[in-house]
Amino acid sequence: MHVMITGAAGMVGHKLAQRLGDDGTLSGRPIERMTLVDVVEPTPPSGFAGAVACEVADLSTAGVADDLAGRRPDVIFHLAAIVSGEAEADFEKGYRINLDGGRALFEAIRLAGDGYCPRFVFASSIAVFGAPFPAKIDDEFFLTPQTSYGTQKAICELLLADYSRRGFLDGIGIRLPTICVRPGKPNKAASGFFSGILREPLNGEKAILPVSQDVRHWFASPRAAVNFLVHAAEIDTAVLGARRSLSMPGLSATVGEEIEALRRFAGQSAVDLISHEPDETITRIVAGWPCDFDTKRAEELGFKAEKSFDEILAVYSEDEGPARS
Amino acid sequence: MHVMITGAAGMVGHKLAQRLGDDGTLSGRPIERMTLVDVVEPTPPSGFAGAVACEVADLSTAGVADDLAGRRPDVIFHLAAIVSGEAEADFEKGYRINLDGGRALFEAIRLAGDGYCPRFVFASSIAVFGAPFPAKIDDEFFLTPQTSYGTQKAICELLLADYSRRGFLDGIGIRLPTICVRPGKPNKAASGFFSGILREPLNGEKAILPVSQDVRHWFASPRAAVNFLVHAAEIDTAVLGARRSLSMPGLSATVGEEIEALRRFAGQSAVDLISHEPDETITRIVAGWPCDFDTKRAEELGFKAEKSFDEILAVYSEDEGPARS
Repeated sequence: MHVMITGAAGMVGHKLAQRLGDDGTLSGRPIERMTLVDVVEPTPPSGFAGAVACEVADLSTAGVADDLAGRRPDVIFHLAAIVSGEAEADFEKGYRINLDGGRALFEAIRLAGDGYCPRFVFASSIAVFGAPFPAKIDDEFFLTPQTSYGTQKAICELLLADYSRRGFLDGIGIRLPTICVRPGKPNKAASGFFSGILREPLNGEKAILPVSQDVRHWFASPRAAVNFLVHAAEIDTAVLGARRSLSMPGLSATVGEEIEALRRFAGQSAVDLISHEPDETITRIVAGWPCDFDTKRAEELGFKAEKSFDEILAVYSEDEGPARS
Repeated sequence: MHVMITGAAGMVGHKLAQRLGDDGTLSGRPIERMTLVDVVEPTPPSGFAGAVACEVADLSTAGVADDLAGRRPDVIFHLAAIVSGEAEADFEKGYRINLDGGRALFEAIRLAGDGYCPRFVFASSIAVFGAPFPAKIDDEFFLTPQTSYGTQKAICELLLADYSRRGFLDGIGIRLPTICVRPGKPNKAASGFFSGILREPLNGEKAILPVSQDVRHWFASPRAAVNFLVHAAEIDTAVLGARRSLSMPGLSATVGEEIEALRRFAGQSAVDLISHEPDETITRIVAGWPCDFDTKRAEELGFKAEKSFDEILAVYSEDEGPARS
């Protein structure tokens, strides 16, 4: 089994490569080979006995997708994307990487010939949805992105379905919740505070909360995200029919619930490190994001996420080993 | 006012050009100039006093979209497309014309600069939806095309919304029902019988009905389709918000209701010209098509369609002048 991951230098991409390396198998078959692709050099998983090729490449560059598809990976995890903020700031770059890069890969697979038809797991996003929302977004709610990033993800979902229907690839798109707790340093993403108000206090550092505690959002841990990707590579796609993309399960929780879980996990002293500094811009952006989903289809197919922030904090503690009070 | 129509040699495109020529105005402003574009030579509208440029051009050819956008039409009706059957038979041509052609036009408009921001009316299709359907497809039902044509239309809807949100153009997408009664000769489209079982008997000719009389579908006359396009060019798009595409009103009716209307309009002798010759392939294709819609948004915005097949037959008689019993 040859597995390819695009976006393999990203946080989720790296965790996925490590998980596959640790398992050593996918769908019950041994993984002999991994190809890890990103625009910056991916780190190979530690302890993996098979062959690993780390490639620095941009799928939107002519010939790159053909080269990669020509290696005929059995399973492709397509995670490569520029993030929402950058796709909004740089219109042309967003379309080039997130749409044309993905489409180049679809086309290269189609044109590879000889019946080549890999399992293709596409990391989509809840950014394909746009306000106003129903109380819970169900599996038949329409895709109305309100960012260029969300538009690019929604278009790739449509292409994935059509290329799958045609038999060019065996695609499944999974819409990831906001990943929390994201390890590492604070970043400037509008969503960064959701992780920051847990991660920084756990590291004994101050954190800023720019929105009110009643803000509700949709979360899953990095470990859950990796589980979604692996499960998507392993399930029988025949049950998907023509509807190849799915909203993943997650936890609908308020910022207040996050903070209460932090209090239970690390005590009042951790909570005291959070200071509320309202930011109108971030408040407005976050108000346009989904808060809750009814993910019946994905749950029936066996996708699972955490059910509380206590679980999410426990996962963070196990996987990232922060200091505990 | 300069109006451009792509796909102007098609049935709806030509009727639209004639209607605009007859009106002489759009949004209360005189039309001084029309640019009619198609891959075959469009016919200029008769009796129009303004300038008409008829162009034979393919939007997917390099430079064509830039040339057309460079003429800075105030309103663009983008109707050009290859039809469903051909897009399914020729994957590459379908994507080249229906996706890349449209995107080239969007891009040319974006890059024209100097604040150029035309009203852009995009002819989409109910083919953006795919079975299984609810009893009525509402304004928030998800787009799940089950043909490459429907996929290409759905992608253009997403691009239209994003380019509009960015202020590059002022877009509105309208999803046309099946047009009936389509004038002219029988064609080989799977949907052709919906018009044929009315048109041929009205012309004293035999018609074949390949499905059962209880098949339900979604219809509007060619005149209604032209009205939709003109209304879309004239309404205040601010009320659309981020949701730039709309399912148009139509008539949900069964084949049996069509035939009863034909009986009332042209007598039993006309109905006797229809012979039922069941065709399994057509029956299966048609079973995957939408039957009924709740088009609340479009109706609130003033879009109107026929309410019975009697009306549709009266429109056909007035516009195409068939023999009446």
